Amino acid sequence: MKATRIVRNILANYEGETPGVKANLCRILMQGKLGGSGKLVILPVDQGFEHGPARSFAPNPAAYDPHYHYQLAIDAGLSAYAAPLGMIEAGADTFAGQIPTILKANSANSLIPDEAPKDQAITATVDDALRLGCSAIGFTIYPGSSAGLDMFEEISAMRQEAAAKGIATVIWSYPRGEALDKDGETAIDIGAYAAQIAALLGAHIIKIKLSSDHLSLSEAKKVYENEGIDISDQAARVRHCMQASFDGRRIVVFSGGSKKGADSVYDDARAIRDGGGNGSIIGRNTFQRERGEALDMLGKIIDIYKGRD
Amino acid sequence: MKATRIVRNILANYEGETPGVKANLCRILMQGKLGGSGKLVILPVDQGFEHGPARSFAPNPAAYDPHYHYQLAIDAGLSAYAAPLGMIEAGADTFAGQIPTILKANSANSLIPDEAPKDQAITATVDDALRLGCSAIGFTIYPGSSAGLDMFEEISAMRQEAAAKGIATVIWSYPRGEALDKDGETAIDIGAYAAQIAALLGAHIIKIKLSSDHLSLSEAKKVYENEGIDISDQAARVRHCMQASFDGRRIVVFSGGSKKGADSVYDDARAIRDGGGNGSIIGRNTFQRERGEALDMLGKIIDIYKGRD
Amino acid sequence: MKATRIVRNILANYEGETPGVKANLCRILMQGKLGGSGKLVILPVDQGFEHGPARSFAPNPAAYDPHYHYQLAIDAGLSAYAAPLGMIEAGADTFAGQIPTILKANSANSLIPDEAPKDQAITATVDDALRLGCSAIGFTIYPGSSAGLDMFEEISAMRQEAAAKGIATVIWSYPRGEALDKDGETAIDIGAYAAQIAALLGAHIIKIKLSSDHLSLSEAKKVYENEGIDISDQAARVRHCMQASFDGRRIVVFSGGSKKGADSVYDDARAIRDGGGNGSIIGRNTFQRERGEALDMLGKIIDIYKGRD
Amino acid sequence: MKATRIVRNILANYEGETPGVKANLCRILMQGKLGGSGKLVILPVDQGFEHGPARSFAPNPAAYDPHYHYQLAIDAGLSAYAAPLGMIEAGADTFAGQIPTILKANSANSLIPDEAPKDQAITATVDDALRLGCSAIGFTIYPGSSAGLDMFEEISAMRQEAAAKGIATVIWSYPRGEALDKDGETAIDIGAYAAQIAALLGAHIIKIKLSSDHLSLSEAKKVYENEGIDISDQAARVRHCMQASFDGRRIVVFSGGSKKGADSVYDDARAIRDGGGNGSIIGRNTFQRERGEALDMLGKIIDIYKGRD
Amino acid sequence: MKATRIVRNILANYEGETPGVKANLCRILMQGKLGGSGKLVILPVDQGFEHGPARSFAPNPAAYDPHYHYQLAIDAGLSAYAAPLGMIEAGADTFAGQIPTILKANSANSLIPDEAPKDQAITATVDDALRLGCSAIGFTIYPGSSAGLDMFEEISAMRQEAAAKGIATVIWSYPRGEALDKDGETAIDIGAYAAQIAALLGAHIIKIKLSSDHLSLSEAKKVYENEGIDISDQAARVRHCMQASFDGRRIVVFSGGSKKGADSVYDDARAIRDGGGNGSIIGRNTFQRERGEALDMLGKIIDIYKGRD
Repeated sequence: MKATRIVRNILANYEGETPGVKANLCRILMQGKLGGSGKLVILPVDQGFEHGPARSFAPNPAAYDPHYHYQLAIDAGLSAYAAPLGMIEAGADTFAGQIPTILKANSANSLIPDEAPKDQAITATVDDALRLGCSAIGFTIYPGSSAGLDMFEEISAMRQEAAAKGIATVIWSYPRGEALDKDGETAIDIGAYAAQIAALLGAHIIKIKLSSDHLSLSEAKKVYENEGIDISDQAARVRHCMQASFDGRRIVVFSGGSKKGADSVYDDARAIRDGGGNGSIIGRNTFQRERGEALDMLGKIIDIYKGRD
Repeated sequence: MKATRIVRNILANYEGETPGVKANLCRILMQGKLGGSGKLVILPVDQGFEHGPARSFAPNPAAYDPHYHYQLAIDAGLSAYAAPLGMIEAGADTFAGQIPTILKANSANSLIPDEAPKDQAITATVDDALRLGCSAIGFTIYPGSSAGLDMFEEISAMRQEAAAKGIATVIWSYPRGEALDKDGETAIDIGAYAAQIAALLGAHIIKIKLSSDHLSLSEAKKVYENEGIDISDQAARVRHCMQASFDGRRIVVFSGGSKKGADSVYDDARAIRDGGGNGSIIGRNTFQRERGEALDMLGKIIDIYKGRD
Repeated sequence: MKATRIVRNILANYEGETPGVKANLCRILMQGKLGGSGKLVILPVDQGFEHGPARSFAPNPAAYDPHYHYQLAIDAGLSAYAAPLGMIEAGADTFAGQIPTILKANSANSLIPDEAPKDQAITATVDDALRLGCSAIGFTIYPGSSAGLDMFEEISAMRQEAAAKGIATVIWSYPRGEALDKDGETAIDIGAYAAQIAALLGAHIIKIKLSSDHLSLSEAKKVYENEGIDISDQAARVRHCMQASFDGRRIVVFSGGSKKGADSVYDDARAIRDGGGNGSIIGRNTFQRERGEALDMLGKIIDIYKGRD
Repeated sequence: MKATRIVRNILANYEGETPGVKANLCRILMQGKLGGSGKLVILPVDQGFEHGPARSFAPNPAAYDPHYHYQLAIDAGLSAYAAPLGMIEAGADTFAGQIPTILKANSANSLIPDEAPKDQAITATVDDALRLGCSAIGFTIYPGSSAGLDMFEEISAMRQEAAAKGIATVIWSYPRGEALDKDGETAIDIGAYAAQIAALLGAHIIKIKLSSDHLSLSEAKKVYENEGIDISDQAARVRHCMQASFDGRRIVVFSGGSKKGADSVYDDARAIRDGGGNGSIIGRNTFQRERGEALDMLGKIIDIYKGRD
Repeated sequence: MKATRIVRNILANYEGETPGVKANLCRILMQGKLGGSGKLVILPVDQGFEHGPARSFAPNPAAYDPHYHYQLAIDAGLSAYAAPLGMIEAGADTFAGQIPTILKANSANSLIPDEAPKDQAITATVDDALRLGCSAIGFTIYPGSSAGLDMFEEISAMRQEAAAKGIATVIWSYPRGEALDKDGETAIDIGAYAAQIAALLGAHIIKIKLSSDHLSLSEAKKVYENEGIDISDQAARVRHCMQASFDGRRIVVFSGGSKKGADSVYDDARAIRDGGGNGSIIGRNTFQRERGEALDMLGKIIDIYKGRD
């Protein structure tokens, strides 16, 4: 599987990293229908943990079965499949080597008391990732939470171990917690900040949300206005987040959020593409649709990233 | 002890797991009167820890003696016997190899101050399980408690060690804590969620309570209503919990709760059977009855799982 | 030193335990004037830690000297001597091999702020016990404290190590903390529960207090009344605590509390004997008396356990 | 699986052993057609290592497939199946839990230079045994070799770890090496000595060869003659080897050697039975025969141990 | 990269193995022009260690550069590239993820004194393999050497660690040493034995040499003759070696030996194919030829394995 020039250029940004990590990044970048393009689409299925099974899978009951997601990701020609330990294990043997997997190593849930700090439990290790043949670990941080610093320490230690053993690290950087109001969680200054923190923590792939044009921090707001940073549309905001990710030296994928209309999903993908983002990590919008419909949508998204739409 | 096709099909769902874990699951599934049927009945005796000795054993004083429970489980032809360290040790030599045992590795009690987070103490290790010849460890988690995330981390680490050494993991997934009111603890959306969390944490056998038709989380309530999920009777709710357990890829047993009328116990078993559950884990309803009566009841429950009643 | 049938029967209850632990239990059970009878009297001297030196030793200043207690226990023909690290070390060489010693491995003190959770500090290890030739470690737990679960985890880990190395474990199970009022600390339902918890944690010897006929937990109270459990006198309450200790499969000794009249001490011993308890662990009532008087009292207690009084 | 009185009596001889080891011995003793009788027949397939594949399997080419042996042992109703790592792994999942397995942890081969000391390589660990769900490890020692003392040290360390983790130890005690001539390897004084050494090293099951009436060591010869030890027939020699195995307190199985006539195989079994041995470990004489013929032979051997022939 | 049915059937033989190992085997089996066919061609370049640089690379000086070999393997569409630490490191970053690599973890050389036992030095670890993104480790054993048992112990320990971390093991099983004469090294009885030993040690891929029809061991010779084992031509001998590799349950590749005529190389490949072998591991015959010629030869070999020639 000869790597394309685009992929080799991306990998060159991870300078000094172990060849094992680069090999795994290469596998993800060369996998599926976008293989070699420098773009990627990842299927994440941790919503059973985050939101519970019925909210996640009842709209498309076939999705209760862990095999369903492996098969969907493979058949749609995606770049990787991400899920918590139990979901990965439940198909790790059947689908061994057929698609790069990302072991989501921490998870929250909807049964945590409101007054508790926003936090997640570590439910898998780097050794689990090795044993299960995963290409990467995934880890959520909550900048904005009083548990944020602890989470940074956890992923710093885990990333160090993972990289030494050739496993890549994907950081889900999700602003949340006491420091932020609801608008702040998706504000562009916060989103760009979240990307920067993930990059600084050593993420190989950064996962953030698409941002609104809201500016949350007053000190930041001044700068955005004084410097005339363009945040007027989604593509501009994606472009700004890429700047915040070491000026594009890190792979950044954007998450899709809850299920919504197909056109809206496609508009997001076009904005990510036009803003220079690397791709989408898209869960509920696909697996909550019937399989045929999901394959059509993923095909269309892939076409968008190929510049055909 | 040639495994039946039903049992081999169940084991095949634990793909990628060590043969040691599968051998122990096989032993449990091939043990006793339900051996080979894919159904199982487990005797759990941790109530001395949870509720104290008199509340647990005074109704049938013979049950103060740890040997009583081993003998009851063997004579009734049950699948396994679960208890905390002291109880297992007190008969481990006399009954070595005669019935699979599950070492309950953490326990709560009724003397914990109300204001403390709902939590348990870890009182045994994987090495204890090996030394004592146990087939599995048992571990309680409290989704809904502010201690929940810590408990998830504890069992994740312990499960990893156990599986590597061929010991299976049974998770008691009991919603409890600040995030839930009394009705919420047995609500169907919460029960299915608890099963899902246990599966995601890598449980080989999931133990949950039977649910009411209450819906606790407002976001979930909408989905149950919109998708028309059938939760109208107990069998339907069991069926839904099996879906939430990787679409039936994990063994799920349902607990019986406090002592009640025999007919109610049998109705529970029929609902579990009809909903596709794997069986019962039934403690107080048996050991708080006189031995002859308990054997009759267990015989009848086994008949129900065999489809004879 | 051929073990009597009574002692061999007691040891047989510790099935599956290492022969090293059994050898140490045998040494304690065969030691002194009660050797071979299945009864035992232990001298504990941890009050210097718990209450300070003057409160402990000023009534009998000879007792400031650690050698005093070794000599007292030996001369009185007791079964074992229990104390914290410093006390044991101060005579470990002089009295090496002359009397089984129990290294009290955690201790509280009277200088802990009231608002702190009831807890103790671990001040010795299993390796200390081995180095000092001790037969057992002693460890206090406080069921009822918000630190209770942590204490359970501490002794679980320490017991596992101790047993593997042939050292027996004595658990001081003392209900105390936010969950209990003053009456609750000595209530019979709580006392029996404390015994049960120690047994479940794997204690080889359980040390509890004598109970009052108070019932503390409302759920338990119902059971005691409905089942007609006899708690009318001290012997009945001892008998009930023996049931709660695996139906008599574990050695249970009862503590004497603060100094009181000699007749009261003898009445306690008679109740323990008549209720089937294994003996007394009696500190202040002996070492706070003048040596001759103490020896007389201990001689009389031994006579009671021999059934001569 | 209620253990019979005979089995419980055998297990009682392993006093002070961990319940985990006893549970695994119980599983072996309760397995298959001889289950519960105190007799056992084990299928060992390490000849591919020892003698090479063609010499081992060409007479019955189906036996090249590792699954063949698992299936033969199960279908013949044997007590356990023993083989090196690769053979065990190749069927560990398919046959998980269906028959106790013994992981042969060291092996020799026919390509070792003649001038090298008789020795074996350690090719598996206790952790392998746990991971693969084995009930025991098997280990060969060569009393008589200049490597003998090293082999004793190896199995001593491995046995300690195995027993602590609940895994039983089977020692293949095969006199061989510079200290012995060809006749000496099967001399009765040497065979009994080999059994004794295995017992002293802590073997739970001892595997030795049937002996000739030759006496090899001159000092021993005198005693055999002076004391009139009966070694006149095979049953007498088996009886003598049982004496040497702690007077029958250890399970002893006798190996069959190279393929020979069926009547000779049956005579061996009758002698083992009449001499009080526990059974046969019989490889080449079964798997080098065609499957139907092998099943007939094993059925007949089982009948002999049942006293029916 | 959807695995073909042929590949999935091969992987199913590695039952009980970690999904990580299977994923790496899958990557090798799905790589390059033979991807999915169940056949494979591996480029090994450890001759610089074994024979020195000039003997290895002077015939085609471009081959002094480690990048040359990576590029050759990728351009020829091979399945994997195997080399010692230094060679792998020298291109690990440039070619990360483009072709599966096998880290040769031990090596001999031509400067070892003749009188020393045939042995190799361990020059890399499993952690090196992880860091460098390798799919497997490679390890040479010398059955027949007085160092053989030590080498078996080395690879047993290393394989256990590697498999736990998802790294596959390739064993170069090369008969050599005091027990064998020159003819014996390539005798068919010895070659099949070497394959069997590798399988028993837990090799996932076995590398052996093509055999002559010589029979070396007299005991074996009898069996080959009595059983009429067909060793008359190379394909028959390959077929016999596949039997010896767990009846075809293990992947076996055959090495090409020193440089020879192209027709001879193709004849070897046809014999391997016709005998049911999995492929070739071919070094000097390719890299000692000029690049264009080597690519032609490899293309032709691939065609042979595809059944086109």
